[in-house]
Amino acid sequence: MDKVEHIGIAVRSLDISIPLYEKLLGTTCYKRERVELERVEAAFFRQGETKIELLQATDPQSVIANFIEKRGEGMHHVAFATLDIRGEMQRLQQEGFRLLSESPKPGADGKWVCFVHPKDTTGVLLELCQDMA
Amino acid sequence: MDKVEHIGIAVRSLDISIPLYEKLLGTTCYKRERVELERVEAAFFRQGETKIELLQATDPQSVIANFIEKRGEGMHHVAFATLDIRGEMQRLQQEGFRLLSESPKPGADGKWVCFVHPKDTTGVLLELCQDMA
Repeated sequence: MDKVEHIGIAVRSLDISIPLYEKLLGTTCYKRERVELERVEAAFFRQGETKIELLQATDPQSVIANFIEKRGEGMHHVAFATLDIRGEMQRLQQEGFRLLSESPKPGADGKWVCFVHPKDTTGVLLELCQDMA
Repeated sequence: MDKVEHIGIAVRSLDISIPLYEKLLGTTCYKRERVELERVEAAFFRQGETKIELLQATDPQSVIANFIEKRGEGMHHVAFATLDIRGEMQRLQQEGFRLLSESPKPGADGKWVCFVHPKDTTGVLLELCQDMA
């Protein structure tokens, strides 16, 4: 893994949280994007080589809606960039980590993504991601 | 704010979690350090320009022990680097964010640190930090 690609933060409302994070981070939101597979809408901010990704549920049965119902708004996951997601998935499985999907799935911002089971990572939901291009 | 300086993860045991994160991240822990003021011991890993900081409580009444008791192990805070922590604190206060200390405090890894109230940041415990040197 090469760097922290982004930190995902679950929020109730992008319309409220985007201006809040613009003030907090002192930078503007450069993109909003719906990710139908995950039933979220995401908003992105740059901080050095890492992005801050705000996530609002678009469906009350989605992962983000369930997370907020159980734990409230807050940090949801951390994503690490890799140039070889399939190789990294294989390496982690060989090390004994369970993955949440057998193969990479299309995620936000033009990435292939795969999550590692948080029970194997001290409660941290960890995402691997690789540029599709 | 310039970059994500580190992500803090609360763990029960560094002795268990350090080898786990070495396998997970594919890199070695380069330092362990006790921070008496926060009553934690920290372990550090590099990932690009960001560090992963594992935090184990050294006192059952500490912030990290309370966090784990309430929420279990997991992501605890995200820290942003700044070259002017006092200026950034003033800017955030003027924007209406509450800070958890009036002035910067000594933190891990040779930094001055200050936290922003998580009620003002969608539940995210956000740290500002600046190199002491």
